[in-house]
Amino acid sequence: MMSQKTHSTVDGALFREAMSRVAGAVHVIATDGPMGLGGATATAVTSVSDSPPSLLLCLNQSSATLRRIRGNGAFSVNVLSKDQQDVATAFSGATGLEGDKRFVSAHGWRLGDGQPVLGLSLASFTCRLSDMTPVGSHVVIIGIVESAESGGDEPPLLYHRRGYHVL
Amino acid sequence: MMSQKTHSTVDGALFREAMSRVAGAVHVIATDGPMGLGGATATAVTSVSDSPPSLLLCLNQSSATLRRIRGNGAFSVNVLSKDQQDVATAFSGATGLEGDKRFVSAHGWRLGDGQPVLGLSLASFTCRLSDMTPVGSHVVIIGIVESAESGGDEPPLLYHRRGYHVL
Repeated sequence: MMSQKTHSTVDGALFREAMSRVAGAVHVIATDGPMGLGGATATAVTSVSDSPPSLLLCLNQSSATLRRIRGNGAFSVNVLSKDQQDVATAFSGATGLEGDKRFVSAHGWRLGDGQPVLGLSLASFTCRLSDMTPVGSHVVIIGIVESAESGGDEPPLLYHRRGYHVL
Repeated sequence: MMSQKTHSTVDGALFREAMSRVAGAVHVIATDGPMGLGGATATAVTSVSDSPPSLLLCLNQSSATLRRIRGNGAFSVNVLSKDQQDVATAFSGATGLEGDKRFVSAHGWRLGDGQPVLGLSLASFTCRLSDMTPVGSHVVIIGIVESAESGGDEPPLLYHRRGYHVL
């Protein structure tokens, strides 16, 4: 019988320290539509399925970008290169900018399928919102990919042990 | 109204090429229990929630490791270092080994909370299976983290543009 426990026995600090050892690509999740233009930096992004092409990301329940994605029904995922650390910082909220003001850092962004595509990205995907599932403090968002484009050959920006790195 | 379309308009080859630009840490997912010992290499892994500590991974519907996780109700996630490329290769199936035979490559593995913990990993998590959701060709697996440990300070092994790299 599967355990029905909903709590974990692991110490939160040990979990966070071990998770900091997981290197990850840095993405900007962006969205536009009736709920307005906005976006956030995220590392918790993976591809899910090849048929149909789909991807998944996790955002905190309190995220303004989450609320916008729910209302807009669509979003983009932009994979950042080594030249976009300022973009990662702006969309992380570290500079205090909110909503559409974060896009000042995103040189040459445009709308593709109605969703923001950030210039200089290594890859950009536009997605139709397919599913949102709350899991603890976060929400797992699944998107069906509507368009995919590859950018240049610059090295990727990575996040590891609480700092940015270049592969 | 949310779109009810279940298919995507993106070309599969364009999607795969753009996805190859996403650098990712390399993990071995392992499991032991009534369905036997087994494991697979995976890059589609992210943390989900801090409370409760949980993580998520995606495996193909045809994966033998997926069947074992379903039956065992638990699994581990091991984050590989630069010194574990042979482990990544063995658990990817590229050497033709299946099931418990893949563990010959995993020097000093042991059971922690009943789940396989691979020595030399940068971090290892043992998880209780919480949820499995089919999405197209794959299944999204969510685990509640029961234990987390950090390893050494070696650089992480990464997968990018269809090959292994070291950060």
